[in-house]
Amino acid sequence: MQDFETPLAGVAAADQMTLRRSNLAVVLRALRDGGPRSRARLASDLGLNKATVSSLVAELAERGLVREGGVERGGIGRPGLTVELDGQSVCGVGAEINVNHVATVALDLTGEVVSERRESLDTVRLETAEVLDHLAELVALTFDDVAARGARPVAVTVGIAGLVDGSRSVLTLGPNLGWHDVPVATMLRDRLGGPPYPIVIDNEANLAAIAEAVPGDLARRDMLVIFGEVGVGGGIIADGHLLRGRLGYAGEFGHMIVDPQGRRCGCGRIGCWETLIGLRALLDAATDIDDPVRDPALGLEERLVEINRRASLGDARTLTALAQVGGWVGVGAAALANALNPGVIVLSGYFAVVGEWMREALETRLHEGVLAPQAGGTRVEFSTLGFTAAVRGGATVALETVFNDPTRVERRAAAPTGGSR
Amino acid sequence: MQDFETPLAGVAAADQMTLRRSNLAVVLRALRDGGPRSRARLASDLGLNKATVSSLVAELAERGLVREGGVERGGIGRPGLTVELDGQSVCGVGAEINVNHVATVALDLTGEVVSERRESLDTVRLETAEVLDHLAELVALTFDDVAARGARPVAVTVGIAGLVDGSRSVLTLGPNLGWHDVPVATMLRDRLGGPPYPIVIDNEANLAAIAEAVPGDLARRDMLVIFGEVGVGGGIIADGHLLRGRLGYAGEFGHMIVDPQGRRCGCGRIGCWETLIGLRALLDAATDIDDPVRDPALGLEERLVEINRRASLGDARTLTALAQVGGWVGVGAAALANALNPGVIVLSGYFAVVGEWMREALETRLHEGVLAPQAGGTRVEFSTLGFTAAVRGGATVALETVFNDPTRVERRAAAPTGGSR
Repeated sequence: MQDFETPLAGVAAADQMTLRRSNLAVVLRALRDGGPRSRARLASDLGLNKATVSSLVAELAERGLVREGGVERGGIGRPGLTVELDGQSVCGVGAEINVNHVATVALDLTGEVVSERRESLDTVRLETAEVLDHLAELVALTFDDVAARGARPVAVTVGIAGLVDGSRSVLTLGPNLGWHDVPVATMLRDRLGGPPYPIVIDNEANLAAIAEAVPGDLARRDMLVIFGEVGVGGGIIADGHLLRGRLGYAGEFGHMIVDPQGRRCGCGRIGCWETLIGLRALLDAATDIDDPVRDPALGLEERLVEINRRASLGDARTLTALAQVGGWVGVGAAALANALNPGVIVLSGYFAVVGEWMREALETRLHEGVLAPQAGGTRVEFSTLGFTAAVRGGATVALETVFNDPTRVERRAAAPTGGSR
Repeated sequence: MQDFETPLAGVAAADQMTLRRSNLAVVLRALRDGGPRSRARLASDLGLNKATVSSLVAELAERGLVREGGVERGGIGRPGLTVELDGQSVCGVGAEINVNHVATVALDLTGEVVSERRESLDTVRLETAEVLDHLAELVALTFDDVAARGARPVAVTVGIAGLVDGSRSVLTLGPNLGWHDVPVATMLRDRLGGPPYPIVIDNEANLAAIAEAVPGDLARRDMLVIFGEVGVGGGIIADGHLLRGRLGYAGEFGHMIVDPQGRRCGCGRIGCWETLIGLRALLDAATDIDDPVRDPALGLEERLVEINRRASLGDARTLTALAQVGGWVGVGAAALANALNPGVIVLSGYFAVVGEWMREALETRLHEGVLAPQAGGTRVEFSTLGFTAAVRGGATVALETVFNDPTRVERRAAAPTGGSR
């Protein structure tokens, strides 16, 4: 009977530690998602006692993660000093291996860009090891940028187009790179001399999706991101979290069969969505085979500038092609919207550049195709992140290590400044 | 500076309450998901202090939610008495309004069926108010069954085929019932005399999906449930939780356009998945218009028995029809699997009855259609819950009110028995 006789036993030390760590994370995320606030407002917003909040804020400040901000007015009682995220101490690093380039970005805790680097590279022709050499060099330069600011990296996330086995940090299949079973994270770690922070890899389109999830935007808590270049992929944000599926392969929208009587895809199947909405489908519909816009020497961005120019001049063939592709984007988006009822569909990659010319056809087919009234409340938006979405998403994921557990950043000497209320 | 000077302030009382409630829920769910265990093993499994666990278990016992079980052997140290869920005190009630019937089920905390009722009803011909009268009567009888066991209901969840606005508990659109904007929960509550527990409504196929989520089965934490009768719907379980989408409309798989050159659907669109895999598609492919299996006097289950009989006898037309429909199930399932990478696809409703005849064609198309190797690890399984999946899911959701907050059940007099270790 002994155990039933001690119902008032206190919460033990180990549990207190877990609670404390979890509460530190709650406060840090609240400042990220809802902006700077006084301790009093943090306490009432989070349902925590004010003394607890003050203690948590003090510890976060010791770890260099928050600092005093401006004066808060308009609340109840006398004005208080706000607390805000401190961008000075740590950075998350995102990296990317793409068909045409390697790239990195470092974001501080507030999401500000601290470093952004890109190197054009014909990754398909190079050996895998050589590509990793280039990437490691770029990451090392990014670390220099971070160090020059007095900050340090907390983690690196590498985005790659292809099937990623996250549990082993291995690229299972990168069809456009021609890579199979490449242990990308290990290879990068070796080249960087075995740094003490996590290096993980993730699917590029998944990272692009994460980059779109604006903290605090409710509609974007249930979001579908469709990312198109030559290939088409994307990511699903469900209730604020990336949906990865059983083995991390979720988001391969490009190979949904949308038109079973359609064209053969690079993957061998007939009628994949990619064959209808990938960049090649647009070029095929908008241009003849000898059109200068198809010149292999042209970069993706230059091609899109030219297509935008023709559309602006009212070129009928270009406009018809954009509407046709937009319609097919709408058909597939409707299928996904019936399944997922997202608050927002974000079109990223090349869609973000020429998408306004697609919007009417796209929205028409979307609304026709969704059973729920008004397309279930789904809005269509175009990404504003350009082709940096994947590296930004990688840096965001890297920063999550701190937002999930602020104690990963060591305490430093007591902050020289600070105040109360 | 005052706040920065009190870093050792303890966790305040209000936070302790929240922590306690959350820990009670953690222990209760651990017993559901992982089965009976000694307090010592609970403590080590949950990373909690043993005194804390004993105190939590004592409180759960006072609330009638757990009890002493058998002796645990094989662990380290001397054998201890296990703790297990107590099914005697509370029940969750699931109810269903279908085209052909109303039904209820009551499950106790351990998931055992305490009451199961069904009334055949031509719901389409009756007034909405009359249907609700019948349902209220059935629910009241179910409450009697629960009371006869000495237990009491904690919540009622009503499943309906159609678009449900969960925030208002209103059926927005029930195409097969011919209902629009019906406040089902309010109407039921009024007829039951305003009982003190929650009454909510939910999409029938979503509830069927929840019923399939076996606690503790890892592969089913990322699961796709496809539910077919005349209509086709389903639900997505992502990381253990039902994916509802922005306005709760997720899971409308039946109206994904799978064959744009195909047949017109009851919803007005061309080529919806439902036109290829709904029960009508099977009957059209397997039988002539004057076939006795299409006799409107036959119930769904009788028709399926006859189709199974013909398939067993090797009837070529029946087998071809089943393979054809199975192939289309595979095409749509592959599209969803590319997007979601589920661990398991569960086929429910009529698929569960005749599905083994579809399996080969289905799996072939699924494997052909999914980009990831071995269909991304997705297994195909058939539901074993029959046509009770939706009411069981409803009762499961009703029980969640207790698993999420055990303090919703009042303490009673101290348990007469109990022991330690």
